[in-house]
Amino acid sequence: MIKLDALYSGKAKTIFKTDNPQKLIMEFRDSLTAFDGKKKSTAPKKGYYNARISEELFRLLEEGGIKTHFDSMLSDTEMVVDAVEIIKIEVIVRNIAAGSLIRKYPFKPGQKLDPPILLLDYKSDEYSDPMINDDIALALGLATREELLKIRELALRINSILVEYLNDRDLLLPDFKLEFGRRNGDIVLADEISCDTCRFWDKMTGESLDKDVFRYDKGDLASAYREVARRIVPGISL
Amino acid sequence: MIKLDALYSGKAKTIFKTDNPQKLIMEFRDSLTAFDGKKKSTAPKKGYYNARISEELFRLLEEGGIKTHFDSMLSDTEMVVDAVEIIKIEVIVRNIAAGSLIRKYPFKPGQKLDPPILLLDYKSDEYSDPMINDDIALALGLATREELLKIRELALRINSILVEYLNDRDLLLPDFKLEFGRRNGDIVLADEISCDTCRFWDKMTGESLDKDVFRYDKGDLASAYREVARRIVPGISL
Ligand SMILES: Nc1ncnc2c1ncn2[C@@H]1O[C@H](COP(=O)(O)OP(=O)(O)O)[C@@H](O)[C@H]1O
Ligand SMILES: Nc1ncnc2c1ncn2[C@@H]1O[C@H](COP(=O)(O)OP(=O)(O)O)[C@@H](O)[C@H]1O
Ligand SMILES: [Mg+2]
Ligand SMILES: [Mg+2]
Repeated sequence: MIKLDALYSGKAKTIFKTDNPQKLIMEFRDSLTAFDGKKKSTAPKKGYYNARISEELFRLLEEGGIKTHFDSMLSDTEMVVDAVEIIKIEVIVRNIAAGSLIRKYPFKPGQKLDPPILLLDYKSDEYSDPMINDDIALALGLATREELLKIRELALRINSILVEYLNDRDLLLPDFKLEFGRRNGDIVLADEISCDTCRFWDKMTGESLDKDVFRYDKGDLASAYREVARRIVPGISL
Repeated sequence: MIKLDALYSGKAKTIFKTDNPQKLIMEFRDSLTAFDGKKKSTAPKKGYYNARISEELFRLLEEGGIKTHFDSMLSDTEMVVDAVEIIKIEVIVRNIAAGSLIRKYPFKPGQKLDPPILLLDYKSDEYSDPMINDDIALALGLATREELLKIRELALRINSILVEYLNDRDLLLPDFKLEFGRRNGDIVLADEISCDTCRFWDKMTGESLDKDVFRYDKGDLASAYREVARRIVPGISL
């Protein structure tokens, strides 16, 4: 596989074309941003940890019958993925109240949400990812009604698989963000599942082991991400 | 009917108890607020116009088979209504893109929304009426799934009745806000339907004849409300 020009460089990853038009290379960088791009930084090996965590969780989901864009690893920070048409909706699943949910609504911090809450944001840097609902998604032409139903069902199945797997590794999953794409008339899970896109809390101490360490200056980001990689990826060299 | 103590004084209306525990008196005041209470004013006869417009539209909806809290008028600004348990959800129906919809999302101003878009906000001054979805409404215990379905169906039926009636009076209805309440195990339309809670545009000129006149200093509020009252309420003395 030959790595060609960068197609798109986002806030944390760069997508490259390859000599196979069906495949892209997704490179996980060490940069990160928060609060709508207002806070920026880099952390050593952050791209590496996130790439390996994503790899492991995509493999887990594939075993669980979920179609993902994951193909293979080209290097420790480069993932080969299927090229998909990204659906411009961020799908957020919440199991425990945290973050914007407790700022915006009268949920108690740490309150268990059972059944989980599903939220949709319009993925748009220009509009700062505003919350939407199904009616708005349809009116904006972001997805069809069938796609929205499929996405909801997939997000909840993905949540069940992840919650169980992480629980065995002493990690709680308060919430996380998914992106889906279209490929050959089907909906597949795309993007990443990592410390940048999930809240991970240590089951015993409740300690944040995710991007909140960066958002709220809670300590050393690289050590938090390393700890998650250690628990999730068997035999990873840290 | 005897008017007793005020039960609640909101931003534009005051609710009084009566000697009948099943009935309340809703008084439409001349005060108004916008932008989350940051902009305040009063306008002469505003309460009168809104009360009479609401009366007329509640009667219209009752004829159309929609249950409302409307009982009768006690005076030009005082409406007798059934006491209900208000559901803390603001139900917004949008037929034409305007206001926050075009600020938050890439809709074109004046763009027709067909089918209409339904939005839910959590009715809470403390939290500034944040947008919610069904999952959040359920998790906060604001309503049951059956109630949410019923509310959606009612809002769309109310919209159809209003759009047709207003169109015959050369008024467009870009969007409006409804509140529902529980009464004897049923869901009834409550609160008001007025120039404070609807966008009304003149069909020919597109001129705002509603609270936007106040929000965006577009002219004389009392004349705008008077014009809507003239078109909606047959034989009203202006
Ligand atoms: N399989 C894929 N095919 C095409 N684009 C993808 C795929 N997976 C993820 N993407 C997109 O690539 C970008 C990943 O880079 P990222 O730094 O996360 O960007 P962003 O700043 O938009 O979040 C995102 O815009 C994401 O939607
Ligand atoms: N039938 C009813 N029974 C009880 N409360 C009602 C009824 N209809 C409306 N209300 C409530 O009365 C208040 C009306 O006053 P308003 O000035 O609109 O208040 P707000 O500032 O909350 O919008 C609202 O809180 C509304 O929910
Ligand atoms: Mg991203
Ligand atoms: Mg009100």
